Amino acid sequence: MRYLNQDERFMAQAIKLALKAEGKTSPNPMVGCVIVKNGHIVGEGYHHKAGEPHAEILALEEAGEKANGATLYVTLEPCCIFGRTPPCTQAIINNKIRRVVVGVIDPNPKINGRGLAVLKNAGISISSGIMKNECADLIKPYAKYITTGMPFVTIKYAQSLDGRLATKTGSSQWISSAATLKYSHQLRAQSDAVLIGAATANHDNPRLTVRLVKGNNPLRVVLTKTGKLKKNLHLLNDKKARTVIITSSPAKFPKNCEIIRLSAKENSIDIKAVLVELGKMGVVNLLVEGGAATITGFLKSKLADRIIVVVAPIIIGDGINAIGNLNVKTINQSLKLIKVDSKRIGDDCLIIGDLK
Amino acid sequence: MRYLNQDERFMAQAIKLALKAEGKTSPNPMVGCVIVKNGHIVGEGYHHKAGEPHAEILALEEAGEKANGATLYVTLEPCCIFGRTPPCTQAIINNKIRRVVVGVIDPNPKINGRGLAVLKNAGISISSGIMKNECADLIKPYAKYITTGMPFVTIKYAQSLDGRLATKTGSSQWISSAATLKYSHQLRAQSDAVLIGAATANHDNPRLTVRLVKGNNPLRVVLTKTGKLKKNLHLLNDKKARTVIITSSPAKFPKNCEIIRLSAKENSIDIKAVLVELGKMGVVNLLVEGGAATITGFLKSKLADRIIVVVAPIIIGDGINAIGNLNVKTINQSLKLIKVDSKRIGDDCLIIGDLK
Repeated sequence: MRYLNQDERFMAQAIKLALKAEGKTSPNPMVGCVIVKNGHIVGEGYHHKAGEPHAEILALEEAGEKANGATLYVTLEPCCIFGRTPPCTQAIINNKIRRVVVGVIDPNPKINGRGLAVLKNAGISISSGIMKNECADLIKPYAKYITTGMPFVTIKYAQSLDGRLATKTGSSQWISSAATLKYSHQLRAQSDAVLIGAATANHDNPRLTVRLVKGNNPLRVVLTKTGKLKKNLHLLNDKKARTVIITSSPAKFPKNCEIIRLSAKENSIDIKAVLVELGKMGVVNLLVEGGAATITGFLKSKLADRIIVVVAPIIIGDGINAIGNLNVKTINQSLKLIKVDSKRIGDDCLIIGDLK
Repeated sequence: MRYLNQDERFMAQAIKLALKAEGKTSPNPMVGCVIVKNGHIVGEGYHHKAGEPHAEILALEEAGEKANGATLYVTLEPCCIFGRTPPCTQAIINNKIRRVVVGVIDPNPKINGRGLAVLKNAGISISSGIMKNECADLIKPYAKYITTGMPFVTIKYAQSLDGRLATKTGSSQWISSAATLKYSHQLRAQSDAVLIGAATANHDNPRLTVRLVKGNNPLRVVLTKTGKLKKNLHLLNDKKARTVIITSSPAKFPKNCEIIRLSAKENSIDIKAVLVELGKMGVVNLLVEGGAATITGFLKSKLADRIIVVVAPIIIGDGINAIGNLNVKTINQSLKLIKVDSKRIGDDCLIIGDLK
């Protein structure tokens, strides 16, 4: 690792704290905070969950009297508005913090620099943009949601090495290993909603609930242009979690399901309209679990933000392709993954990247 | 790492030595040897190159007088025949080694246990099968070649995350990164021959030589049922390495190319016959570099031993699939990769496995 200066070193610690609540803060972002006096950390905090205290408040509480004259490091600009909790800027001023070091400015149009202005007006010294990229990564879903009203979209699926979701005859269970299945449930627990297409709902009859790890069930969303869903599907009947059906058809569904009707655009449901509707429902993190048509639709619309592909160590040959036509003619036009990471879970290889 | 007993610990060192000559010993296998006296290593050796001394001889030379009464660890059963060098068994006896510990028995039908019998008859104590699996891995290509007459086949290609070699219009350069290209040249340098199909030869006009790393050019092999190769191809004209054309057609080719004529079987060249011919030419390690039809042919015939897939972090959508029809109907029938390994080279992810 390259040599870090003191500001970066304490900001790195704030980032580490923020990540402790990964997948648990929605619709709020992950935030970490460290208070430093005479080169020593005197208070630490991170945002645990929406409705609970912000990172700065917890760190200030821990620092107590020692906050007087200290430097406060926080990954995200402190808020200056009354949300579910009072503004952090006032607490920082009240506790006589001398300097505030910030990773990224809050993209929330209601804050967006105003928090720093409040602190500056109170005579506090400000440094901003310390470990900016790393801090921006922490708030990616929140930043998209707060600026566009649409959820951050993660596509996740399991494929064979040769890019197939299933054989020609539709055989697909189990492409990936038990260990990877557990990881998939972890992803669900970290998401506000999980979305699949009608073909997957009818063919696999998934529950889309969290069973292999601790965590809450996400909202379940099914896209069906025609409204043709089998009557006996788990997610229509098991009442284990809310189910939302987004459809262009006047078809009827069980009473416990919520229905959103959207007009079809070019023979399929408009992905952007779907995201706007889910955003209105407070979905910040959306996990798209397939199948091929749905994944392809999200990629084609350029409305997906991240992709997680589980590559199983098998080769199927001709079969059902995970990804269909994207109108790519030359390699230059292909979709590029950035910030690529890969990891092994048993014999499976996970490839994770953000879409440009 | 699990606790190793003393025999395993010294065998592990012999394996480590053997691997120093990875890709350089063909047609011989990699072999490593360690001589131990009173718990200390007094001699080490590994086979560097065909025609040069065997591992045991180098280790005995280093041990000198200390070999008297010592234990010799060797990954592969010592030879008892005159090959390009005299039999190692005699040298072991002459040097008064008391005990010999062996990883795997030599699969060469001319040896296959006879080396150990010679040592045993001379009163030397024998332990065999120590770290058997790891030692067997060292000689995999040699073992296949010596028992079947056919080369060990490694398929290597670069694909997009979704399993495409190219876009629909055939655009493929460069799917993988410069760093991966260097790795590909390394693989060539470690192979006796590199094979491609006619479509790849005509479309990409590759040189198939080693340029980005030090090493020898492999034999270049082109499969062409119809014999239709463009006249200006580098590998037909550049004389940088031997070129063998395997064809079912009476077509004529430049004088410097060697021609092997094989009758077509079910409208394509019989892969097994190709491997038998290359085996006769002394090819132990064969690298198959594509394209799709050739890769699919090798996989379908179940004559490929290893696959190395470079997964580039791009998504193409509909395009040219790396792998075509393998008559797989259910996931159970899919080809399974075992001993799967993965590594990152830049943003590319390499997935390596042996075919069952």
